[in-house]
Amino acid sequence: MNGKISKEKVSLWDYTELCITAGFGGNPFSEVDFAALFTSGGKSVTVQGFYDGKDEWKIRFMPPSEGRWHYRTSSTLPALDGSEGEILCEGREEGNHGMVQVADKIHFAYSDGTPYYPVGTTCYVWNLQGPELEEKTLRSLASSPFNKIRFCVYPKRYTFNHNEPPLYPFKGEIDRAWTREEQDDYTPKPRDFWDFDELNPDYFRHIDECVLALRERNIEADLILFHPYDFGAWGFDCIPEEKNRVILKYLVARLGAFRNIWWSFANEYDLFQNKALHEWHRYIRFVQELDPYGHLRSIHNCREFYDHHKPWITHCSIQSDRFDLIKEWLEDYEKPVVIDECGYEGNIDRDWGNLSPREMVHRFWSGFCQGGYVGHGETYMHPEDTLWWSKGGTLHGDSPERIGFLRQVIEAFPTKNSAPFERHNAFMDGKGYGVYPEFGLYYLGVRQPSFREVTLPEEGEWEIDVIDTWNMTVKSLGKNFSGQCRIDLPGRDGMAVRFQKRG
Amino acid sequence: MNGKISKEKVSLWDYTELCITAGFGGNPFSEVDFAALFTSGGKSVTVQGFYDGKDEWKIRFMPPSEGRWHYRTSSTLPALDGSEGEILCEGREEGNHGMVQVADKIHFAYSDGTPYYPVGTTCYVWNLQGPELEEKTLRSLASSPFNKIRFCVYPKRYTFNHNEPPLYPFKGEIDRAWTREEQDDYTPKPRDFWDFDELNPDYFRHIDECVLALRERNIEADLILFHPYDFGAWGFDCIPEEKNRVILKYLVARLGAFRNIWWSFANEYDLFQNKALHEWHRYIRFVQELDPYGHLRSIHNCREFYDHHKPWITHCSIQSDRFDLIKEWLEDYEKPVVIDECGYEGNIDRDWGNLSPREMVHRFWSGFCQGGYVGHGETYMHPEDTLWWSKGGTLHGDSPERIGFLRQVIEAFPTKNSAPFERHNAFMDGKGYGVYPEFGLYYLGVRQPSFREVTLPEEGEWEIDVIDTWNMTVKSLGKNFSGQCRIDLPGRDGMAVRFQKRG
Repeated sequence: MNGKISKEKVSLWDYTELCITAGFGGNPFSEVDFAALFTSGGKSVTVQGFYDGKDEWKIRFMPPSEGRWHYRTSSTLPALDGSEGEILCEGREEGNHGMVQVADKIHFAYSDGTPYYPVGTTCYVWNLQGPELEEKTLRSLASSPFNKIRFCVYPKRYTFNHNEPPLYPFKGEIDRAWTREEQDDYTPKPRDFWDFDELNPDYFRHIDECVLALRERNIEADLILFHPYDFGAWGFDCIPEEKNRVILKYLVARLGAFRNIWWSFANEYDLFQNKALHEWHRYIRFVQELDPYGHLRSIHNCREFYDHHKPWITHCSIQSDRFDLIKEWLEDYEKPVVIDECGYEGNIDRDWGNLSPREMVHRFWSGFCQGGYVGHGETYMHPEDTLWWSKGGTLHGDSPERIGFLRQVIEAFPTKNSAPFERHNAFMDGKGYGVYPEFGLYYLGVRQPSFREVTLPEEGEWEIDVIDTWNMTVKSLGKNFSGQCRIDLPGRDGMAVRFQKRG
Repeated sequence: MNGKISKEKVSLWDYTELCITAGFGGNPFSEVDFAALFTSGGKSVTVQGFYDGKDEWKIRFMPPSEGRWHYRTSSTLPALDGSEGEILCEGREEGNHGMVQVADKIHFAYSDGTPYYPVGTTCYVWNLQGPELEEKTLRSLASSPFNKIRFCVYPKRYTFNHNEPPLYPFKGEIDRAWTREEQDDYTPKPRDFWDFDELNPDYFRHIDECVLALRERNIEADLILFHPYDFGAWGFDCIPEEKNRVILKYLVARLGAFRNIWWSFANEYDLFQNKALHEWHRYIRFVQELDPYGHLRSIHNCREFYDHHKPWITHCSIQSDRFDLIKEWLEDYEKPVVIDECGYEGNIDRDWGNLSPREMVHRFWSGFCQGGYVGHGETYMHPEDTLWWSKGGTLHGDSPERIGFLRQVIEAFPTKNSAPFERHNAFMDGKGYGVYPEFGLYYLGVRQPSFREVTLPEEGEWEIDVIDTWNMTVKSLGKNFSGQCRIDLPGRDGMAVRFQKRG
């Protein structure tokens, strides 16, 4: 055996790393093929390797099942070729349920079948703010309700985002500061001070660290591979396609073994001025082919949706506040609908970032009770421009606590497979969600009925609860409702009603 | 001269009535043509007459201009034919601005040019509740902000509406009560106990009284000529077309001289199961031809809009909560957009009738600040089923006071011709309304920005006010804003910002 294995015994859905030291005179990112075949019984997994600097080459592997796994490397570089060995995958860590995958067509579940209900937030470049702020963000996340975070591979130049990242992803140096004219000219500009052939392993290693820090906290890392907010600052939105493929392969090799990684191909893909639709198709399919684990793949719009019917898209990542269309999207795409962006709680001047906390909570309940998974973001003015939505830090808003309450309600669903109801089998008129007649959740929103007439089946008994979504209370109206009944409601807005079959 | 004139001297836009007594052996509603030609200088107006019972035949005339008006009747009944005389139209009553007409394409104004901003409410059958409740409704209206009310010619059978009207519009008697099965069967049913040829003048005289009582209070009477909420109770939605034409002609003859009448051809026309689209076209054109004053004509939808492009439609009467489409409708139809129904404040179980007061006020501001005219209704549970939306009575909600505040803001517009702004000449981003750069009103709704960057022209000075739409306060930020400026906002939701050029 050549090389060193970080763990010869690894638990299920954890990862282990093979490291081989070898010199190479050429470009280690683009000129060397390096992979490993892992086999166990009839199963086999081909994993890409990557160059991690200082003559170190690595293969990372997440065993998808218990047992002995044999591996053998292959490479165009002889020193990396033919290394063989074995690892043992045994046992599961407490709380490790595996990778999140699509389940029951419009939902998600971990590898072991545990339902996963995404309750996401967005901190676009929290990972490029230096250790102090990044630690603070991780602490905030740990005490928040969020189990998914969207963030970017590349730094971002945008309003409230004028700081340079601590590191750059490529070899090179910025030759001069952005001029005022360039700042005002929102055209993408290639910048010639990078050598895109020379990736900076330190930069990408930090992404590993961030994804692993999230993994420890059971937070999914919805990693945005491309974004259009460069505007000539670094030119990272103008990298030629063949070089992007090298980078994508590198990211898949580095991050694919981390069970909590999701591939988000772009934020607001439709704002890129220099990428044709087919280029997106090719990137997504390329990653789909390389990634042996099949991590989730999505692409987020500003206005025009990407065609989420495409078979290489696992779920809809949507920017919209048209919650009334969720049911239509679910029926049309037959995939989970994640509304990653419906506006953010905050008080900035931009309309995407100044929702009241009440409205943010209202949107969460509206979306979830119509079958979507709504995402959070926060944009309160901050003396140092540390807005959560972009840089992370501390949460200041009043919505996260209530979103946490909603998450509790959702995670207490007695059934998986919930879906928006059809009118003909709903417990009551309006927009309900659940599995009839086992379970139903209705959000009344800006409506304040003082009562509702409900038609339950004659056979059986149902408990009906009234949920105050803002004050976070649940009040049972009784456990033996059946047939025609009238339920009294408080006549205030922001209420939800829950039906659960009890007998 | 034959007959009696109620007033030989009448002020502008008031009316006078000629009454001729004559016996007739046949059907006085369908078998007699009776009209009068009024002339003054080069102007002439042909007015239909009507039979008012007890051998009395009447012609009502609203002089559209000052001066001596000569009239001459014509009729197929000799006793009504050739009656001639003169009236003098002189002076104007204080507060009488004439008829409301479309002005500046998407707005309304009275005959004398005074802008009219419809702030309407709905009490579908307030006029069929007997004197006590009707008086109470009129008192409530007088102290309310509403300057338009929608109500129906025919009684209504619907939830919370099970009382019979005090009178019936036709000769006949209901032979039996509605059975439970008939109540549950929502199919329109012709009922054979009426003689549709025999109108009941007392019934229609009461409509006159109601319209005149509203006229006294400067409230426009948006009279709904047909509605689909009969469901076999009386069969008034199943009257054959040729008989409907007799009734329409009768209504035009009775009510056309009242300056505050508007013809609303239907409520939720698309819910009628027994009327083809062309039947609606014919009714509207028929009234358009008969009505010499050209009172406003509209038709209200449930889901599908009537084609408001039709030249016989004066303005869009819309049921919708899609305020984001108002600008599109204005551009498409080039007519005023009146959203008569966007949901009602209340606490009933139906979703169209349980908006919180906050949401009702929010919808008013949203609609008005995007160029529409939003209507109110109220549906709070009441021990005697006296819900304002249907029967009138007393207002209980928290929105009317705030709607009154909005009306004050609107009526203080320094300019007519306000319209939704184009982005390129808006004072600030977002949905603004006004006349650039004289005046602008922006409603921020669920957004709570703490500031806004504003680009005003360099030349001139603007006053900027912050309006709290719920707490009904106006706070000036100063009177000499110009050029690039930053305005500080309170970071709460429900705010509006107003720009007025002061120098």
